[in-house]
Amino acid sequence: MVTPDDLRSLTIVSAAERIRDGAISSLELTRAALERIAALNAGTHAFITVTDDRALAQAEAADRALASGEDRGALHGIPISLKDLIDTAGVRTTAASRVFEDRVPAEDACVVERLRAAGAVLVGKTNLHELAFGVTNVNPHYGAARNPWDLERMSGGSSGGSAASVALSMALGSLGSDTGGSIRIPSALCGTVGLKPTYGRVSVRGVIPLSPSLDHVGPIARTVADAALLLEAVAGHDPGDPFSADAPAGRYSQQLEGGVAGMRLGVPRDAFFHRLEPGVASAVETALDALGGLGAERVEVGVPDTDGYETIFKAIATAEVFERHEERLRSSPGMYGDDVRERIAAGKELRAVDYVRAQRERRVLAAAVDAVLRSVDLLALPALPITAPAVDQTAIEWADGNETVLHALTRMTRLANLTGLPAISVPCGFSDAGLPIGLQMIGRRFDEARVLRAAHAYERDAGWSARRPPG
Amino acid sequence: MVTPDDLRSLTIVSAAERIRDGAISSLELTRAALERIAALNAGTHAFITVTDDRALAQAEAADRALASGEDRGALHGIPISLKDLIDTAGVRTTAASRVFEDRVPAEDACVVERLRAAGAVLVGKTNLHELAFGVTNVNPHYGAARNPWDLERMSGGSSGGSAASVALSMALGSLGSDTGGSIRIPSALCGTVGLKPTYGRVSVRGVIPLSPSLDHVGPIARTVADAALLLEAVAGHDPGDPFSADAPAGRYSQQLEGGVAGMRLGVPRDAFFHRLEPGVASAVETALDALGGLGAERVEVGVPDTDGYETIFKAIATAEVFERHEERLRSSPGMYGDDVRERIAAGKELRAVDYVRAQRERRVLAAAVDAVLRSVDLLALPALPITAPAVDQTAIEWADGNETVLHALTRMTRLANLTGLPAISVPCGFSDAGLPIGLQMIGRRFDEARVLRAAHAYERDAGWSARRPPG
Repeated sequence: MVTPDDLRSLTIVSAAERIRDGAISSLELTRAALERIAALNAGTHAFITVTDDRALAQAEAADRALASGEDRGALHGIPISLKDLIDTAGVRTTAASRVFEDRVPAEDACVVERLRAAGAVLVGKTNLHELAFGVTNVNPHYGAARNPWDLERMSGGSSGGSAASVALSMALGSLGSDTGGSIRIPSALCGTVGLKPTYGRVSVRGVIPLSPSLDHVGPIARTVADAALLLEAVAGHDPGDPFSADAPAGRYSQQLEGGVAGMRLGVPRDAFFHRLEPGVASAVETALDALGGLGAERVEVGVPDTDGYETIFKAIATAEVFERHEERLRSSPGMYGDDVRERIAAGKELRAVDYVRAQRERRVLAAAVDAVLRSVDLLALPALPITAPAVDQTAIEWADGNETVLHALTRMTRLANLTGLPAISVPCGFSDAGLPIGLQMIGRRFDEARVLRAAHAYERDAGWSARRPPG
Repeated sequence: MVTPDDLRSLTIVSAAERIRDGAISSLELTRAALERIAALNAGTHAFITVTDDRALAQAEAADRALASGEDRGALHGIPISLKDLIDTAGVRTTAASRVFEDRVPAEDACVVERLRAAGAVLVGKTNLHELAFGVTNVNPHYGAARNPWDLERMSGGSSGGSAASVALSMALGSLGSDTGGSIRIPSALCGTVGLKPTYGRVSVRGVIPLSPSLDHVGPIARTVADAALLLEAVAGHDPGDPFSADAPAGRYSQQLEGGVAGMRLGVPRDAFFHRLEPGVASAVETALDALGGLGAERVEVGVPDTDGYETIFKAIATAEVFERHEERLRSSPGMYGDDVRERIAAGKELRAVDYVRAQRERRVLAAAVDAVLRSVDLLALPALPITAPAVDQTAIEWADGNETVLHALTRMTRLANLTGLPAISVPCGFSDAGLPIGLQMIGRRFDEARVLRAAHAYERDAGWSARRPPG
């Protein structure tokens, strides 16, 4: 038996072991997850669609398969949630927008095909900012995905429902998407592990695009080992995705050990260590010390200043999202929330020359960061400068002036989208108010293995992943 | 001794052997090349700048180094020309434009650094269309680079001077650039071998950009083996070029043998075998038969139609070239030739959304061609539908209507720029009027080795590379 409360202490790794011990079944696990969703979703708005019946049928099938000796690996029978812009055949996929309100895809996204092949059980589709692009956290159609640690606060980013679903054990893992930080931001705010893989590492076929040259799909999980299992299941070349890289994926879950001794950890202090909440600053410094204690060598490194690439990011994202919505925006403007419509429509007036210039500057930025990453193995920096703001908060007050919440949330994360480099957020402590804080590590292109290895070593040493939200 | 006439029968490979035999020196070879330039340049306009003194000094240094036992390989002491948009420290680099009329770069382009390191002797900078973007073949500043086989005809593309310099043995090899076909087009028109490498394979640092997402640098040579030597010298990752791919380069000159037996050769008949000059059609069919006779298996394959990607190409190139020239076009419009100014200025009005759409469609096209290239090893098609037009010719008359010369010249070549795939033009015969014809082969991403191997096998069998122009 697994009670809903038991689920709180399980990870994918430990649940997979107990399933193989015969201690629990996928059906019990899935029922417990669905019970937690039923109990907690009204307060959290983590899910837009719950796929009860399908999930139970999948769980039963998973149990039958295991009983007959067919074992598809660690994800076999494990309840997983999916951000609701990832297509699921026969199950409504809305991107939290009225635009796609009644949209039922005929085919699974590539990552869903792969999760199914790995035996995963899909419990539902999680809430997000409208089209992953809303400015306000209060989604006009599906409400705000609330922070598990404080329901008055936001779960952040656009994959907030995914992170909340994992933090509250409504699923043991999730897939989110990350265009400007939307896997790492909610992970930092909710105390989960979130990995944005290298651009092209995970297929985006069947994922409703926001800004195709910046979009990434990746795992959100309770632990680094769980994130490695999810990544391993979905990574690798997809000929059906023109953005997919023809690069061999690793067996990430088998490459976690080895620690950080001898690794060179670049700390971009000038670019990323100002305007930090005091609790964030001290948690990140403590984490860097812990990594030093584990044998990593810390080196200060310079990366181009964050202000420059906010402009680059905006020019690219606005043009690309407009391209995907131009027609519908003209024919059905009322289908969009006000803030999203305004933000997308800004792409109409953009000149090609400015987009081209932004993409060129982006290449130069990426080459500069690649060069830094030839002298160090990883970059280590905060995932966010702040802990979770209130749901309706719009500005952060600093000693030297205000900053919009949107800007603060993406200030640390955009770099990895612009460069395409793999980046993780792993829990590194809590503020005095009891809100989670994330340490971000950015690795070399296609070197997810090293990012995961360092995060795993840190996590095991620090132990923050074990702390759970109330509920 | 090497007379200017002796030079006509030499290749890089045979000259390198004779240098090592002690039969000839680099100084003799270089003197002979310079004498040929002095004799032929007035009639051909192949060179914008001849670097006599520097070349002789380099040749003497090369001879001294060899005498003291320092052998840098096959290019050591070999006279090479460079398209005049490739920066040479201390030597004027004009891009055949008044914009850069007095421009003397302080630093060598990456490819020049590498050629120097390989011991090559640089005899001069070759003529091109203004900024590699002129429409007319009569460059307003430096005249038209003439076709060695008929001085009333164009040498084509924008690397025309490079191909003419090699065809007339004014240099034993050259580097050109190829944004829409400008290595392969002049190679086909002049009877040389021209290879456009995979996008990112050869650094473009220090090469005056035209359209950075389409620009490639590559070799033009008399034979496939010579092209392989040049590619091998300049290929490989350059951290100073943000577009450079971090992919290991091959020892191409060591990978030429093995033939085509068992290779699958895709023939995109529907897309590329219409509106061909009869002489071109029969030469290419004969070449395909010859490849079949050597053991290659011919398979008809479909690739997306050429008409669609003309639009894509235009949107991308126009926006990108405008981005590089926006400021100067405003401040000094008179510095541009009329046709070039008009063509560049068209980028001003382009909308970002249209550029983004073109880049997306390009990704889809590239993925489609990659998919075809999983079922075959290479694509084989004409390099051009025509042989060299007259210098002032603007249209080609077909039975079913007219076509601009510019369109005809780029109709077969643009695909490899849009996809970034490696593509070669190798001589495959002559028209009744005695004008050269080129066979184009397109390979898989970063698989230059196979393209060169197939071209080498064909060339050796067919023997067309041995035929030389008058002079």
